[in-house]
Amino acid sequence: MGAAPSELTTALCGCLILLIPFAYAGLALMSSGMGRSRSAVHSLIAALAAAAGAAIVYVAIGFAWQGTPATPSYGLAAGGVVWNWIASGRFFFGGLESAGGTGLLTACFGVFACATAAVIPLGAGEERWRLGPMLASTAMLAGGTFPLYAHWVWGGGWLASLGWQSGIGRGFVDASGAGVIQVVGGFSALSITWLLGGRRGKFSQDGMPAAIPGHNAVFVTFGCFLGLIGWFGLNSSAAILFYGAESNRVPLIAVNTLLTAAAAMLAAALVTRMRFGKPDASLSANGWTAGLAASSAGAAFQVPAEALIVGLVAGVLVTFSVEWLELHFKIDDPAGSISVHAGGGLWGLIAAGFLGRFPIAGGDGQMMAQLIGVATLLGLVLPLLYGSNWALNKLIPYRAPLDGERQGMDLHELGANAYPELVSHFDDIPQR
Amino acid sequence: MGAAPSELTTALCGCLILLIPFAYAGLALMSSGMGRSRSAVHSLIAALAAAAGAAIVYVAIGFAWQGTPATPSYGLAAGGVVWNWIASGRFFFGGLESAGGTGLLTACFGVFACATAAVIPLGAGEERWRLGPMLASTAMLAGGTFPLYAHWVWGGGWLASLGWQSGIGRGFVDASGAGVIQVVGGFSALSITWLLGGRRGKFSQDGMPAAIPGHNAVFVTFGCFLGLIGWFGLNSSAAILFYGAESNRVPLIAVNTLLTAAAAMLAAALVTRMRFGKPDASLSANGWTAGLAASSAGAAFQVPAEALIVGLVAGVLVTFSVEWLELHFKIDDPAGSISVHAGGGLWGLIAAGFLGRFPIAGGDGQMMAQLIGVATLLGLVLPLLYGSNWALNKLIPYRAPLDGERQGMDLHELGANAYPELVSHFDDIPQR
Amino acid sequence: MGAAPSELTTALCGCLILLIPFAYAGLALMSSGMGRSRSAVHSLIAALAAAAGAAIVYVAIGFAWQGTPATPSYGLAAGGVVWNWIASGRFFFGGLESAGGTGLLTACFGVFACATAAVIPLGAGEERWRLGPMLASTAMLAGGTFPLYAHWVWGGGWLASLGWQSGIGRGFVDASGAGVIQVVGGFSALSITWLLGGRRGKFSQDGMPAAIPGHNAVFVTFGCFLGLIGWFGLNSSAAILFYGAESNRVPLIAVNTLLTAAAAMLAAALVTRMRFGKPDASLSANGWTAGLAASSAGAAFQVPAEALIVGLVAGVLVTFSVEWLELHFKIDDPAGSISVHAGGGLWGLIAAGFLGRFPIAGGDGQMMAQLIGVATLLGLVLPLLYGSNWALNKLIPYRAPLDGERQGMDLHELGANAYPELVSHFDDIPQR
Repeated sequence: MGAAPSELTTALCGCLILLIPFAYAGLALMSSGMGRSRSAVHSLIAALAAAAGAAIVYVAIGFAWQGTPATPSYGLAAGGVVWNWIASGRFFFGGLESAGGTGLLTACFGVFACATAAVIPLGAGEERWRLGPMLASTAMLAGGTFPLYAHWVWGGGWLASLGWQSGIGRGFVDASGAGVIQVVGGFSALSITWLLGGRRGKFSQDGMPAAIPGHNAVFVTFGCFLGLIGWFGLNSSAAILFYGAESNRVPLIAVNTLLTAAAAMLAAALVTRMRFGKPDASLSANGWTAGLAASSAGAAFQVPAEALIVGLVAGVLVTFSVEWLELHFKIDDPAGSISVHAGGGLWGLIAAGFLGRFPIAGGDGQMMAQLIGVATLLGLVLPLLYGSNWALNKLIPYRAPLDGERQGMDLHELGANAYPELVSHFDDIPQR
Repeated sequence: MGAAPSELTTALCGCLILLIPFAYAGLALMSSGMGRSRSAVHSLIAALAAAAGAAIVYVAIGFAWQGTPATPSYGLAAGGVVWNWIASGRFFFGGLESAGGTGLLTACFGVFACATAAVIPLGAGEERWRLGPMLASTAMLAGGTFPLYAHWVWGGGWLASLGWQSGIGRGFVDASGAGVIQVVGGFSALSITWLLGGRRGKFSQDGMPAAIPGHNAVFVTFGCFLGLIGWFGLNSSAAILFYGAESNRVPLIAVNTLLTAAAAMLAAALVTRMRFGKPDASLSANGWTAGLAASSAGAAFQVPAEALIVGLVAGVLVTFSVEWLELHFKIDDPAGSISVHAGGGLWGLIAAGFLGRFPIAGGDGQMMAQLIGVATLLGLVLPLLYGSNWALNKLIPYRAPLDGERQGMDLHELGANAYPELVSHFDDIPQR
Repeated sequence: MGAAPSELTTALCGCLILLIPFAYAGLALMSSGMGRSRSAVHSLIAALAAAAGAAIVYVAIGFAWQGTPATPSYGLAAGGVVWNWIASGRFFFGGLESAGGTGLLTACFGVFACATAAVIPLGAGEERWRLGPMLASTAMLAGGTFPLYAHWVWGGGWLASLGWQSGIGRGFVDASGAGVIQVVGGFSALSITWLLGGRRGKFSQDGMPAAIPGHNAVFVTFGCFLGLIGWFGLNSSAAILFYGAESNRVPLIAVNTLLTAAAAMLAAALVTRMRFGKPDASLSANGWTAGLAASSAGAAFQVPAEALIVGLVAGVLVTFSVEWLELHFKIDDPAGSISVHAGGGLWGLIAAGFLGRFPIAGGDGQMMAQLIGVATLLGLVLPLLYGSNWALNKLIPYRAPLDGERQGMDLHELGANAYPELVSHFDDIPQR
C-alpha cells in the first residue's frame, strides 16, 4: 500500500467518490434500454433497490469484515506465514469517525463501490429476476463476498501481502476495482444467470438463440457517457486510497479511463462491422463499458498508449465473449453484463501484470501475482457466489413465473407499465 | 454558526455546489415522467424557466435580503431583545467580490439552492399551470419568501439566534435546507395546488380521485439517481457554509444522504407492497426523494444508523401523505411534490431535534427550537406563500383553459408535442 | 497568461475538468432529440465515436502541436516580430508527466475540450452524415484545426501575444473556449452542412424550408441541464489554466454561466413568443445552449449583471440566426449547432471586448484584439475547415444514400432501430 495521502489529496478524494453513483446510474439506464419495454421500470426499480440494499448492508456489517490495513483481523497460518483473511471491525462504521486517518473515507468509498458491484448483475437477470430474491442476493453480496474479497485486495489481506510476504511481485494489484468491483459483480451476474436460465423465447427447441432487441437504444448509448463520469470517480479515488496516487494524477487517470473506453468502443464497432457488415450499437456500447471495466485494473498507473492497448483488446474480446456465452453456454445475459464486467475486468487484471508502473515496492513476478488474484476469483469467489445464490434460490425461487414474464415484470411485479400511453408490440413471445 | 472554514474546505465547497443542479435536473425529469405525455416537454421547459428566473431574481435582489451574518440588517425589538429579521445587502452581489470571506460563496450557493426550491412546485402544478404566472410566482419566491426564511435560518436571523439570545437549544438548526429549500418549495407547491385545483378528470363528481398514470416511469426512477448526486452537493456545501463542517466530513455526509434515501425507498416499497399487494414504482421513487428531503435537515451531523432511521420514517410517511392529501383534501399533486418535499422536510427538521450532534454551542431544548422553526414555516411562511400566490392568481390566472388541458400543455403553450412521432392514447379525459 | 495557480487551485482544476463530459453528453442527447426517431441512436453512437476518436487523435498527435507556452515552438517572422504559430511537443503526451507544472493538466483539459468541439458538428449533420467520414473528419479536427487554433490562443501563440508584442489590448482573450471550442466546433458544423446539403424533404422545389420536428423534446430540454454542468467544468478550468483564475473564483464562474444561459433561454422564449404567438421549446433550448457558448468567452471574469447582458443578446441572436441560415442560406442544421455554437461563441468573444475584467496586463484596444481573433476564425479557420472537409468528402463521400436516409440512419448504418417496440410514423418523407 502507498504512503498516506496528503490532506489536499484526501479532501479531493472525498469529493471524487461523489461521482461514483453515475457509474451505477449509467449501468441501470443501459440495462433498462437493453431489456424490453414491458420490464423497463422494473429494471430501474431493481437498480435503486440494489444500490439501497447494498449500501445499508455494507454499512451495517460489510465494512466491518473488509476493514483497512489498520483494522484488527484474523489470520490463517499456512506455509509458515500467517495469511490475513478477514477483518474484525465494528458494525455501522463504529469508531471510524473518531479514529482519524483515511479509515472513514475508505469506508465511504466502499459504500459506493459495493453499490456499483450490486447493480452489475441486474442487467444479466433482467426481465425474469424477482425483486425479493434480488434484494436477498444483494445483501449476501454486500455483507459477504464483496467485503471478503475487498479485504484480501485492499484491506491488508493475503492477496495484497503476496508481495512482501512471499516475494511475488508487488502482491496482487487491482488499482481501482477491476477485480473487487467488476469481476465480483460480473461473477455474481454469471451465477444468477445460470440459476435463472434464459428468458422465454430466447432459445429455440434446438438451442439456437434468438435476438431479443432492447427497447431503447438511446438509453443504452447515453448511459455510456454517465458511466464514464462514474468511472472517473472509481478509478481516481481507489488509486488514491489504496495505492497512494496523488491529487495531481487525477487528470491523467481520467484521460486514461476515457482512452480505454474509447479504444474499446471503436474496436467493438470495427469488429462487428467486419463480421456482420454493420457496426452494432449495442455491442459498441458494451465495448465502451468493457473498456471502463478493464481500465479499473491499471489506468491509474499507465501511460496513455498503454491505456489504449488495454481498451483495444477489451473491445475485441467483449464482442466474442457475448456471442460465445450465448451460443456455447446458453447464457441469456440481456445487457452483456458478464462479458462486460467479468470479461473486461479479468482482462484488465492480467494486462496490469505487464502494463503500468504501480507505485509499490516489489520484485519480479507481477504477472504471477495477478494470476493468483485471478485464480482466486475463479476458484474461490465464483464458487462462493454460485453456491450462496444456489442455496438462496432453493429458499426463495429467483425466477418469475411464466405468466409474469409474458406480461412483463413491470405489470407483474409493480402493477403498472413504464410507458402506459405508448403502443407496444406484445406478440413477440412464442406461446409455448 | 460554526467557525470559518479552512481555505481547503472553502475551495472544495465551491466545487460541491456545482453538483446541486443535478437536484433540480432530477426533479424536473421525475415530474415530466409523472405527468402525461401531452405535457411532457412543458414540464421541462417550466423547470428550465423556473431555474433561470429564480437565479436571475435571486442574484438581482434576493440575496441582498438574505445576506450573511456579516451583512447589515434590520431588527425588531420584542421581548427585550432585538430580533434580526431581514438583511440589507446590495443588489446584484454588489461588494461581495471585494469583501473576502465566504460571502460570495454563500451567495453562489444560494443561487443553486433557490433554483432547487423554485423547481419543486412544478411537479404539483404540472399539466395545468401556465408558464407566465409560473414565472411570476417563481420571481416572488426567489425575491421574497425564500431569501426571507433563509435569512432567518442561515443569515444570522432570529431563528438561528434563538439559542444564544433566548437559550433555546442551539437555536433552530437546518443543516442543509430541509426547511429553507424543501419545505419552502413544498409549501409553495401546496399553495399553487390549492389555487389551481385538480386536473380535469382527476376527481369524479362525488370527489373520488382517479389514478392518472405518469407517461414515463423510467424518467421517474432514473431521476432518483440524479437527485442523489444533487443532494450530495446540497447537504455537504450547506453544512460547510452554515455549520462549520470540515472537508473530511463530506464523504460521511454523502453516505448518510444515500442511506436516508435508500431506507426511505425500501420502506415505501414495502408499505405499498403490504397495502396494495405490489410495490408501487412511483411511490417508491417518491420515498427515495422524501428521504433526500428529510436528509437535508441533519444528515451532515448524524451517524449512519440515525440516517437510516430518518429515512425509514420518511418513506413510510410519504406513502400515507400522498394518499391522505388526495383523498381528504382533494389535492391533485401529480409528482407528489408536497408530500415529498414539505412532508419529508418537516419530518427531517423534527428528527434533527433528537438525532444528530450539531457542532454549535447550545443548551437543552433543541426540540423546542426545531418546533419553533417548524411553526414558523406553518404559521408564517405558508400563509405568506399562499397569500402572495392568491393575489398573483387574481392578477394573472394560473390555470390553463379547459381546452388547453385537453390537448395538453405542450400543444397549448408551446405549439408542439414532445414526441410527435409516437402514437399516444388521447381518449382518457372525460368529455364533460 | 496569468500567474501559476496554487497547488490547491491546480488540484481542484484537475477535478473540475471531470465535469466537462457532461457538456458533450448533453449536446449528444439534445441532438438525438432534435432528429427523427429513425436516426436516434445513430446520433448517440456518432457522439460516442466522435468523443472517442477525438480523444485518441488529440492525445496521439494533437496536443503536441498545441502545447503550452513552455513547449518549444516554431515562429514566423512578419512585421519585424516573430509570430509563434505551432508548438513542437512530443506525441502521446511524451515527457509531460515528468515535466511538472500544469503541462499535463493542460493536456488533459484539452482532451475533454477537444471532444466537446468534435461533438458539436454532429447535430448539424445528423440524419445524413455517414459514420466513417464523420470519424475521419473528427480526426482532422482533433489532430489539426483544433490544436492549431488552441495554440494560437492558449499555447503562447500569436493571437495571445498580440498584447505584449504589438500593444493591442491584452492580446486576443478567450477565457474558456468560446472561440477555441465553440466557434471551431460550430464552423466545422457549418462546413459539413454546406457539403452535405439538406435532408431529403427539408426544402421544397422552390427552396422553402419545411419544419421537421425532432422526435423527443424531453431529451432536448433535459440535455440543457447536463450541458450546464459540463460548462461549469469548461468555464472554470480553462480560466484557471490559461488566465490565472484562483479557486475561490469557481463559484462565481458557475453562477455567471447559469445566468448567461438563463437570460438567453428566457430571451429566446420571449422572442419566439412575440413572433410566433407561443414560445418554442426547441429554440428556447437553443437559446440556453447559445448562452452557454457565449459564456465561455468571458463569464469567468464578468460580474453577474454583465453575464446577464451577454446572455440576453445571445438568446435573441440565436432565434434569428437559426431562421436566417435556413431561409437565406438553405442550411439544414437540425440541432441548430451552427447558430448556437458559432453564433453564440462569436458574440461572446466580441462582448468580451467591452465586458469583463481580465487579469492580464494590457493596454487599450481590447476590442481590436477580439476582432482580430474573430477575423482569424472567419478568415483562416473556417476556410481551413471547409477546405479539409471538402477534400475529404471527395475521397469518402459524407452523405448517406437516399435510401439510407429514407429508412433512417439507425437501420441503414447500424442495422437496427432505436425503439423497435414503439410504433412510429414513417410516411413523412416525400417520395420524390
